[in-house]
Amino acid sequence: MQGSRMKALEEKILTEGTVLPGNVLKVGGFLNQQIDSDFIMEIGKEIARLYESEHITRVLTVESSGIAIAVAAGIALHVPCIFAKKHRSANMPREVYTASVYSYTHRETYEIAVAKDYLSSADRVLIVDDFLANGNAVRGLMRILEDAGAQLVGCAIAIEKGFQGAGDELRAKGIRVESLAIVDAMTDESVRFRAQ
Amino acid sequence: MQGSRMKALEEKILTEGTVLPGNVLKVGGFLNQQIDSDFIMEIGKEIARLYESEHITRVLTVESSGIAIAVAAGIALHVPCIFAKKHRSANMPREVYTASVYSYTHRETYEIAVAKDYLSSADRVLIVDDFLANGNAVRGLMRILEDAGAQLVGCAIAIEKGFQGAGDELRAKGIRVESLAIVDAMTDESVRFRAQ
Repeated sequence: MQGSRMKALEEKILTEGTVLPGNVLKVGGFLNQQIDSDFIMEIGKEIARLYESEHITRVLTVESSGIAIAVAAGIALHVPCIFAKKHRSANMPREVYTASVYSYTHRETYEIAVAKDYLSSADRVLIVDDFLANGNAVRGLMRILEDAGAQLVGCAIAIEKGFQGAGDELRAKGIRVESLAIVDAMTDESVRFRAQ
Repeated sequence: MQGSRMKALEEKILTEGTVLPGNVLKVGGFLNQQIDSDFIMEIGKEIARLYESEHITRVLTVESSGIAIAVAAGIALHVPCIFAKKHRSANMPREVYTASVYSYTHRETYEIAVAKDYLSSADRVLIVDDFLANGNAVRGLMRILEDAGAQLVGCAIAIEKGFQGAGDELRAKGIRVESLAIVDAMTDESVRFRAQ
């Protein structure tokens, strides 16, 4: 079995990423803010390959940094992509599933919401995100899936901060978490990846 | 010459869209909130076809509803996609281009920002968005391009609200605006599209 680690992503992190104070790994040049379109499509295809036998019906992410990778995965899997909004918008139906998520980056708690129209108990859902650090966003999305009675098939993450432990906690609960790169340690000078 | 109107989008608006009070056209089932992945890729390819001879170097949008369509256009054009953030994030470099945008939907003025790293005077930029209504977001992105000295090649919009006039105002200034569907009037019962 081929594993889930994606060598090209590890190389891109090493050549184009920057470590900032506060354990921030800046990859804004290709994964957020600026998206390397061809590369994000390669990531989407790799996610589709990992989950191709799982009969996924929906890809779920949270706005806004997860949208690009989730759309690429949706395109590769040929299934709709849903994004949880961080605030109810004027155009959002009143009937929504919601969850509270605490963001360490922004030091605030925000609400995420998905319209009930877009998730049902018939759905087999893949959660996709650019980063997995403390896992709060993923856990918020999991609560929304529970409310909807939808089945969580697994998570597909571009970059997991392994040293923050959330990925391994989820795996210990029996949840399939596929991360294309897992950073187990990082300093200004180096990034250490978990082996396959 | 084949025009820019996309029949499949008009049909999807008619079958899956809903008109809400306040001139809101709700297309959350396929264009926001939930993305029809195959269809968004078709939209991306159509945008690429319209601008294929223009040597685009960057696609630019504003988070978060524009990201899906901009990424699809970026994938089809094989160029990077940049999204302006609505608030400076912890991970954003201090050196940014900014503009103020008034949102009629949310009745507030917000700042948009693009890191200076991602735009230069060598860029030929395509602005992409899901909706063009009053044009405030596009004008904010245009100010950012002016600050960067980058060239605006044109705009590619999924749904233009023609009755709000911003698209025609931009065209009158000589800006190329390609909208895949232009709604010239809408009521609870009907949506009238502008002919090719």
